[in-house]
Amino acid sequence: MERGKYKKVAGEKPSLYVSLSPALVHLYELSSSIVVIIDVLRATSTIATALHNGAKAIVPVDSVAECIRIGKQIEAITAGERDGVVAEGLQHGNSPFEYPESFVKGKTLVLTTTNGTKLLHMALDNGAKEIITGSFPNLQAVCDHLRNRNQPVVLACAAWKDRVNIEDTLFAGAIIDQLREHFDIRCDAAGIAHSLYLAAKEDLFEFMKEKQASHYTRLMKYGLEKDIRFCLTPGGANVLPSYRDGKLISVPV
Amino acid sequence: MERGKYKKVAGEKPSLYVSLSPALVHLYELSSSIVVIIDVLRATSTIATALHNGAKAIVPVDSVAECIRIGKQIEAITAGERDGVVAEGLQHGNSPFEYPESFVKGKTLVLTTTNGTKLLHMALDNGAKEIITGSFPNLQAVCDHLRNRNQPVVLACAAWKDRVNIEDTLFAGAIIDQLREHFDIRCDAAGIAHSLYLAAKEDLFEFMKEKQASHYTRLMKYGLEKDIRFCLTPGGANVLPSYRDGKLISVPV
Repeated sequence: MERGKYKKVAGEKPSLYVSLSPALVHLYELSSSIVVIIDVLRATSTIATALHNGAKAIVPVDSVAECIRIGKQIEAITAGERDGVVAEGLQHGNSPFEYPESFVKGKTLVLTTTNGTKLLHMALDNGAKEIITGSFPNLQAVCDHLRNRNQPVVLACAAWKDRVNIEDTLFAGAIIDQLREHFDIRCDAAGIAHSLYLAAKEDLFEFMKEKQASHYTRLMKYGLEKDIRFCLTPGGANVLPSYRDGKLISVPV
Repeated sequence: MERGKYKKVAGEKPSLYVSLSPALVHLYELSSSIVVIIDVLRATSTIATALHNGAKAIVPVDSVAECIRIGKQIEAITAGERDGVVAEGLQHGNSPFEYPESFVKGKTLVLTTTNGTKLLHMALDNGAKEIITGSFPNLQAVCDHLRNRNQPVVLACAAWKDRVNIEDTLFAGAIIDQLREHFDIRCDAAGIAHSLYLAAKEDLFEFMKEKQASHYTRLMKYGLEKDIRFCLTPGGANVLPSYRDGKLISVPV
């Protein structure tokens, strides 16, 4: 079980694992799993928001050069960040507030970020069966989808340059809090994520502040409290971004 | 700071980081740090116990073949496990109860384990400034030493085949609970470990059981509840194992 493919026997609950960092994701069998890419601050929150506000599609790419090249090719908006700020040569950043309906409706975004879009490509390279993206704004859509699909799941945290972070772990914990009766969870990282979420759930923002979460500190320095609060609040953009044919689109749950 | 060497400026508190898996330890600057190797179930608990019971030294090696070879060479006890059971060709296993004073006093052990001794060699290869081993039986000695030394610290969890585990994370959290006022902690993994410890500290054994920690489950199957309970209890073997000239010896705090 630990090394083989995750199989689902009729009547048995499917497995659920948590990878706390991209540097650990190779330990899990992605080819038989739905992989949820989690980059709470801010890539996957922004992806959900742009799609919720009517964007046609989001093309995740892993380099700024590729972002510019494809952006020109398909006449799309180029967006992304490196180290938390708009990357040089791109038009827009990684804030959900940059993508209101009035701006984004019907458009395609090409997006590159420090951690989230890179992890998505790792999941692709590792043959993930299905890739969706998760964040607090679309927590419910993700949970409903995973419950409906009833397949093995790997919750893959984007972390920060491979270092485990609090916010992605919290989101994994929030999913587990809803779905733990529906899955066979034999994963210590899942237990850790759930425990962390239970400690934090009364006020996620205050918890991040109290723990001096590194990306909280980084974004607060840029004056982005509003972004952090939005990205930690469930329900702001309840769509299901699913990766199909090279892009993320909103699909029915 | 994040990428450079961890420097300690006069009057400032030294840094403390937590690496939750050997697959993450390269992210931290070990060459300026005291590295605490943590393998609660059971390598570092057994190391503390054997030294507490009078063993002269413990030679950690990373393969069974090397264990047998060196054991013959220096006429030492060969000990170790693979996947939780005594490795073929070795005389003894990885239980602290195999090393009472009547057996181990004055002797040298050559030890190889699935995760802990491998991580120790990774720390060596990465040029760790100082290497000590930590476990609940010697929690206090470790904390006292780190407080006295007042140098940068990396708490390095051995995990299980690179997968993050609950018990090593709990031990990192227990250290942080004692030392957090003495260190400058800007590490999300440290925040996660501390939160986990706070949730578990009333009864670590019950917490491991409730969370169905993977190595708890594995050892319980082998009938090793007594080992687990000992390894989760502070004070059973309060020595400070320090790595010097190829071996772990007990040194004054």
